[in-house]
Amino acid sequence: MTITSSTVRSRTDLCTAIEDELSGLIGKRASAATTYGPDFARLWALAGQNVLGGKFVRPLLLMETYDALQQTHEDQQAHQAHHGNSSTETRQRETAISIAAAIELLHYAFLLHDDVIDGDLVRRRHPNLIGSLLAEAGENSRAGSGLHWAQTGGILMGDMLLAATHQSFARADLPHELRLRLLDLLEHTINETVAGEQLDVGLGDGVIAPDLQTILVMCGYKTATYTFELPLRAAATLAGADFAVENALATAGRHLGLAFQLQDDLLSTFGDPRRHGKDPFSDLREGKETAIIAHARTTIAWPDIEPFFGKPELSVGDGEHVRRYLTDCGAEAFVQGLIEEQLQAVNNQLTGTIPASVRNVMLDFAGQLEGRQS
Amino acid sequence: MTITSSTVRSRTDLCTAIEDELSGLIGKRASAATTYGPDFARLWALAGQNVLGGKFVRPLLLMETYDALQQTHEDQQAHQAHHGNSSTETRQRETAISIAAAIELLHYAFLLHDDVIDGDLVRRRHPNLIGSLLAEAGENSRAGSGLHWAQTGGILMGDMLLAATHQSFARADLPHELRLRLLDLLEHTINETVAGEQLDVGLGDGVIAPDLQTILVMCGYKTATYTFELPLRAAATLAGADFAVENALATAGRHLGLAFQLQDDLLSTFGDPRRHGKDPFSDLREGKETAIIAHARTTIAWPDIEPFFGKPELSVGDGEHVRRYLTDCGAEAFVQGLIEEQLQAVNNQLTGTIPASVRNVMLDFAGQLEGRQS
Repeated sequence: MTITSSTVRSRTDLCTAIEDELSGLIGKRASAATTYGPDFARLWALAGQNVLGGKFVRPLLLMETYDALQQTHEDQQAHQAHHGNSSTETRQRETAISIAAAIELLHYAFLLHDDVIDGDLVRRRHPNLIGSLLAEAGENSRAGSGLHWAQTGGILMGDMLLAATHQSFARADLPHELRLRLLDLLEHTINETVAGEQLDVGLGDGVIAPDLQTILVMCGYKTATYTFELPLRAAATLAGADFAVENALATAGRHLGLAFQLQDDLLSTFGDPRRHGKDPFSDLREGKETAIIAHARTTIAWPDIEPFFGKPELSVGDGEHVRRYLTDCGAEAFVQGLIEEQLQAVNNQLTGTIPASVRNVMLDFAGQLEGRQS
Repeated sequence: MTITSSTVRSRTDLCTAIEDELSGLIGKRASAATTYGPDFARLWALAGQNVLGGKFVRPLLLMETYDALQQTHEDQQAHQAHHGNSSTETRQRETAISIAAAIELLHYAFLLHDDVIDGDLVRRRHPNLIGSLLAEAGENSRAGSGLHWAQTGGILMGDMLLAATHQSFARADLPHELRLRLLDLLEHTINETVAGEQLDVGLGDGVIAPDLQTILVMCGYKTATYTFELPLRAAATLAGADFAVENALATAGRHLGLAFQLQDDLLSTFGDPRRHGKDPFSDLREGKETAIIAHARTTIAWPDIEPFFGKPELSVGDGEHVRRYLTDCGAEAFVQGLIEEQLQAVNNQLTGTIPASVRNVMLDFAGQLEGRQS
């Protein structure tokens, strides 16, 4: 007897399913929030707009990997003439979507607390939650207290999203053993992300020395763990994959995540601002400790760069000047080399234990990296 | 056949059991934290010192209520000649202790984020986690960035404690149904506490109008819910008490919590600073919107008080002057009356459905209120 394998879902269908799940999670809380008055309800309304306006990178990575693993599993079962139980499969997939959505809430919780810590009011050219609260508080608040009120909203909403993430993991419709594995994964992820955020802030505040090794560790902890390792490991756990597959995926994910972060740094400094949409010199003005800067520090060009680094009043002319120095001293090429190394490491993990369908998902995500401008 | 009822535990034994549980929870994480370097490990070490130096009010309330409910239950069973299963009872009590400890972590998570929001560096005359990080960063950090580094530590450590609280609830050794009820309770608690914190900040920042009703709602949400309602409801759920008992306890807890908060405000303004240890005029200097002030605003004395309210440079002489006005205009007596009403409402709840042993626990906590100086 042959089993028809489940349809490979298009990315649009997946986005819709993730969006529906997130709408449900947030909508339920947003309507309960009205009990506590308009200011509390406003937090949930703003968070809902921002979360639902996202690109769902992490949930998509989880679900596409999950579907690919299930596909492989079903193909094997069909080969062995086993019978799939489609109602169980549907339930399992719903659970996977609930975890994927929870990971998006975690992402947004991290973004919010990061925005509070960095004093940011804008994300992707729009006011973030804090910026919106500040604009709305303008007329009512005591002089100078609007920012305090708005940042308080950022801290508190981050707390509620962190709580909501845990609630979804804790309530997942799974055998308790599996739920505990996902809870372990969540705990590990939060520890690494917090450690990465602390390193990043320590580098910026001059508490921690900016050597290349520390910067690479920071990028891995702060971004790669929750953006790649978490969705990939969760997908493997939910699909019942072998531990060897889970580990290979996690390792590949960490390398891919580091490549993404390094690419981001390159784009911010050397990319075309008409395409990536950021201030091309903001990293230099802020004195952001990136791998580019860490390499430049080790070259004879550093004494010429240093006077301009971390200067809020950096002119466009000076910015272009520094950018040329960073290219000429080899820092740009050095970071391009690091990205190549990371992508090579991804490829190395994708041979062997990883099923072909899953490999394609990873290569697709890696491919987005190469064409990406922002 | 008569069953020997379980021993009524002394408060010292309970404190030791709670302390052991907290040491285990924090110690495990503190040692895992060393993987991420000394700065990350320092967060856990400082949090551990602060949490373990606490008075465990919330875990004690939970455990004393739990033990009293179990006692009642056992007495009834003995009467009906049923047999208790002591190994099950021991396991259940261990679970109760783990939830009690998790509630202490939640308390500390709230305190930390509250300290970040209020810019506080000191708690109970000692540097809080942020104050300690600031003192330690002093020599290394870039000029002016020590406070940023320290407050970042406060936000991040609060996040980790909030996560740890959820992990304990999610892993509780209980039937999934009961675990879900505790997770509901945790979600409700966090919503109310966050709503209360937001109201408090909104009152301080002048975004929300300071009428008496809003201030009383704020006190209930910000403090009474997680300090009294949460431990009492959790105890009832864990002990398998009737829903009527749980609700009566929760209502009594909210009234008791409000009484505590109002008493705190009275002590801060009118109490003997040699006994309560706080700056006697800090509430006035900060312009804290309390029930005392809300009442004073409604009297003809307000125009004489207002010029001094929220003045950071308030002198001792002026402070004493304002305090006399607050007494003479009836604000002190008004708040004393509110406290009486709340305590009366506690007593009303304690007649009827609540078992005698549990009533004694509540009366004991209410009694501490009356003799309390800080």
